[in-house]
Amino acid sequence: MKVGIVDTTFARVDMGAEAERVLKEELPNAIIIRYTVPGIKDIPVAAKKLIEEEGCEGVITLGWVGKTLTDKFSYIVASMALQLVQLTTNKHVIDVTIHEDESGEESELLRIALDRARKHARNLAILLLKGGEGLRPYAGKGLRQGRPDAGPIE
Amino acid sequence: MKVGIVDTTFARVDMGAEAERVLKEELPNAIIIRYTVPGIKDIPVAAKKLIEEEGCEGVITLGWVGKTLTDKFSYIVASMALQLVQLTTNKHVIDVTIHEDESGEESELLRIALDRARKHARNLAILLLKGGEGLRPYAGKGLRQGRPDAGPIE
Amino acid sequence: MKVGIVDTTFARVDMGAEAERVLKEELPNAIIIRYTVPGIKDIPVAAKKLIEEEGCEGVITLGWVGKTLTDKFSYIVASMALQLVQLTTNKHVIDVTIHEDESGEESELLRIALDRARKHARNLAILLLKGGEGLRPYAGKGLRQGRPDAGPIE
Amino acid sequence: MKVGIVDTTFARVDMGAEAERVLKEELPNAIIIRYTVPGIKDIPVAAKKLIEEEGCEGVITLGWVGKTLTDKFSYIVASMALQLVQLTTNKHVIDVTIHEDESGEESELLRIALDRARKHARNLAILLLKGGEGLRPYAGKGLRQGRPDAGPIE
Amino acid sequence: MKVGIVDTTFARVDMGAEAERVLKEELPNAIIIRYTVPGIKDIPVAAKKLIEEEGCEGVITLGWVGKTLTDKFSYIVASMALQLVQLTTNKHVIDVTIHEDESGEESELLRIALDRARKHARNLAILLLKGGEGLRPYAGKGLRQGRPDAGPIE
Repeated sequence: MKVGIVDTTFARVDMGAEAERVLKEELPNAIIIRYTVPGIKDIPVAAKKLIEEEGCEGVITLGWVGKTLTDKFSYIVASMALQLVQLTTNKHVIDVTIHEDESGEESELLRIALDRARKHARNLAILLLKGGEGLRPYAGKGLRQGRPDAGPIE
Repeated sequence: MKVGIVDTTFARVDMGAEAERVLKEELPNAIIIRYTVPGIKDIPVAAKKLIEEEGCEGVITLGWVGKTLTDKFSYIVASMALQLVQLTTNKHVIDVTIHEDESGEESELLRIALDRARKHARNLAILLLKGGEGLRPYAGKGLRQGRPDAGPIE
Repeated sequence: MKVGIVDTTFARVDMGAEAERVLKEELPNAIIIRYTVPGIKDIPVAAKKLIEEEGCEGVITLGWVGKTLTDKFSYIVASMALQLVQLTTNKHVIDVTIHEDESGEESELLRIALDRARKHARNLAILLLKGGEGLRPYAGKGLRQGRPDAGPIE
Repeated sequence: MKVGIVDTTFARVDMGAEAERVLKEELPNAIIIRYTVPGIKDIPVAAKKLIEEEGCEGVITLGWVGKTLTDKFSYIVASMALQLVQLTTNKHVIDVTIHEDESGEESELLRIALDRARKHARNLAILLLKGGEGLRPYAGKGLRQGRPDAGPIE
Repeated sequence: MKVGIVDTTFARVDMGAEAERVLKEELPNAIIIRYTVPGIKDIPVAAKKLIEEEGCEGVITLGWVGKTLTDKFSYIVASMALQLVQLTTNKHVIDVTIHEDESGEESELLRIALDRARKHARNLAILLLKGGEGLRPYAGKGLRQGRPDAGPIE
C-alpha cells in the first residue's frame, strides 16, 4: 500500500517528517511518498497526482495558514479543492491545517502542529486499515487534534 | 434498502446512535451502514463511498462545528462537498450540523444535537419512502430541528 | 411541458402554493411537479431529480434563510449547488430565497415571500415560453421581486 | 463569429445596449445574440446556453449587485458559476458587475456602469480577435473599467 | 517544454516580464507562452487554454487584487477556478496574487510584487524540473514570497 504526504515550504514546522514517522509506525509495510509544494493552494493538485499518478490509497496534507482574511480565504479555496480531490478519487485525504491565529506563542504553534500532524496521521492509518468501522468506538467522543480532547457531553 | 450514517470523533454527542435508532424504527427492513471519520471535512467522501461502494439509497451525516471563523469556513467547505455528493449521485444526503455557538450551555447543545439528529433521520426516512410528496403537507410550516418549530406566518 | 417547484418545511410561508397558482395561470398546459424537502441544503438535488428523472424543462425553488452567519453560509452552499444543477442540465432553475433579516415584521416577510414567489414564477414562465428574448424589454429596468421596483437610473 | 450578451432586469442601467453598440463597432461582422434574465444568479446558465446552443465564441455578462451581505454572497455564487462556464467551454466570459455600494450617487453609478460595460466589451473584442497577445501591451498598466486608470507603479 | 504566464492589465506592476525573465534563466530550453487578460476573473480560462490548447506543462498566474470586500470575494472566485484548472489537467498552476491592502506604500507594493513573481517563478521551475522532491529540503522552513522568510519554529 502506498500513502502520500504533501507539505509546504510556507509552513514553519516540519509536520511532514512527523507524519511520516507515525505512518511508518502504524503502517510498517506501506510505501510513503512525499511531495513538497510552496503553499496551501499548491497542495490539492499534488495530492491528486499522488493518488492518480503514484497510486496512493490515501494522503495526509499539512498546510499552514497565515493570519489575514486573505489567508483565511485561501484556506477555503485549498480545502474546497481537497474535497474535489477526494470526491473524484473516492480516497480519503486528511486535510490538516495550522492557523497562525491559533496561538500568539511560537512554542505553542509548534506543539499544536506536531500533535495535530501525529494524531491525524494515526487517523489516516486507521481509515486505511479498517475503513469506516475503525474510528467507530470514538464517534461523538469529542476528540481533538492539536489540543486536549473536549470529551463527550453527557 | 441500505441507508448510511456518517458521524465524527470530533462531535461531542453521539448523534450517530440516535439517528440509527430512529432509522431502524422508521425503516425496519433497511440495512443501516455506519462510517465514522475524524471531522467534518472527512464526511463527504465517506458519504460518497457509502452510496457508490455500499449501495446506500440515502445518507444522513452528523457534523459538529467549532466556534471560530475557521470552523465556519470549514463548514462551508464540507457542506459544499456534500452538495457535490448529492449532485453526482442524485441521492439525498441530509447534512446535519451542530454549531458550538448555538448555545453556551453544554446541556442545551446535547438536547439540540439529539433532537436535530432524530428529526432529520425521520426526514430522511420520509424522503426515501415517499419521495418529494412525503413532506408536502408540511411545506411552509416553519418546522425546525433542534429547536421548537417556528410555525407558519399567517 | 413539465415544470418543477421545490419548497421546504423550514419556510414559514407557503410559497410553493403561490408559485403553483401563477405557473398554472401562465402555463395552462404545463404539468407542475412539486417536491418538498426539509431545508435549503436539500433543495438542489431535488431540483436536479425533477429535471433529470421527471423531465422538467425548468424549476423554481423557494428557500427560507435564517438570520445567523451560519444560515448565510448555508445559503451560499445551496445557491452554488443550484448553479451546478443549471450548468449540468442547461435548464433554468430560478433560485428564490427569503432571508429572515429582510424584515423584523412577520407581516412584511409574508408579503415579501408571496410577492417574490409570484413574480419569479412569472419570470420562469417567460423564460420557458420565449427564451432569452422574453425579458428583453425589461433589461436594465431595475425590477425587484418582494419589493417595489427600483426603476432605471436615467 | 457569434458573440453573446447576457443582462438582467434587476440592473438599473441598460448596459446591454451599451455593450452591443461597442461590440458592433469593434466586430462589425459578428452576430450579436442577447439574452435577458431576472438577476445575477440566472446569468451563468444563460451564458452557457449562448455558447453551447447558439455557438457564441465569447460572452459578456452584465450584472448588478445590491448592497447587502446577501447580495455579495450571491455575487460570489454567480461569479463562481461563470468560472465554471468558462472552464467547461474554454471560452472567455467577461463577468462585468456593478455593485450598488460603489457609489451613493445614482448619476455616478450610471457613469460607472456605462464606462465599465463599454471598456469590457472592447476587452472581449480584443481577446476574440487577437487572443492572449492582444492585451499584452497593457499588461501591468493598472487599467480600470468604470473608473480612471490607476496606472502602473514605477 | 512549454510553460505559460498569465497576467492582467489591472495589475499595477509588470510581474509577467519578471516571471518570464526568471523562467528563461531557470529553464533555458523552455518555450514561454504569455497570455494577458483584463483582470483576475479572466485568468483561469486563460491558464486552462495554455495547458490544453498550447500544451504548457505548468503555468504561473499573476493577479492583482483591490482593497474592497468585493475584490476579496473575486479573489476567492478566481483562485477556486485556478484549483479547478489544476485538478482537471493535473498540472501545477502557481496562483500568485498581490493584494492592495498588503501595503499603503506604492513602492513597497512594487517590491512585494516583483519579489513574489520572481520567487514563485523559481518555485514553478523547480516543480517542473524535479517534481515533488525538488522543494523537499525546504519543507517546513517558513519560506515567504514578497516578504522576508519567516523561518522555521524550533
